[in-house]
Amino acid sequence: MSYGYLGSMKTKPGHRDDVVSILLSGVDGLREHGCDLYVVSVSDTEPDTIWVFESWRSKDAHAASLQLPETKEAIAKAMPMLTGEFSGQETTIVGGLGAQH
Amino acid sequence: MSYGYLGSMKTKPGHRDDVVSILLSGVDGLREHGCDLYVVSVSDTEPDTIWVFESWRSKDAHAASLQLPETKEAIAKAMPMLTGEFSGQETTIVGGLGAQH
Repeated sequence: MSYGYLGSMKTKPGHRDDVVSILLSGVDGLREHGCDLYVVSVSDTEPDTIWVFESWRSKDAHAASLQLPETKEAIAKAMPMLTGEFSGQETTIVGGLGAQH
Repeated sequence: MSYGYLGSMKTKPGHRDDVVSILLSGVDGLREHGCDLYVVSVSDTEPDTIWVFESWRSKDAHAASLQLPETKEAIAKAMPMLTGEFSGQETTIVGGLGAQH
């Protein structure tokens, strides 16, 4: 079954869309590293929050992706625009529409 | 841009997998009602919680789906197994791998 990750992060005011751009810039390369879904979303009701929903072929694939040079570069670029408030939940994806499991 | 919904629900002990089955039973029909993603997940660390990540072509499509007879039937079947603790966050999906936006 696939490894899921439900994450959110807070950005400093006015920087949400910059961080969204950074997150989306690396998306093309994710599939070859074992990622099936990497969905970025925002909300008008919480204008400084970004949600990311991820599905990976394994927990190891997700962990390995964090060590890629391009991931490290993206994190370094985004970090100054984040407040440091994160939430994260690891899950096991059991099925559904659009799910690889 | 797509309408996203990040939801979680708590089940009474021992009923998580029954509720998962109910959620997954209706998945085949969702696409024709405007749903692109409906991903159900669980976690060993919170054994009585179910997470659902949804992407719909519009907020209206999501709202309309809740009025479908098959949805109402599924909700009625699951409700006695739920504790009543829910969380939900509406979002706007801005992009990513596997995202329709």
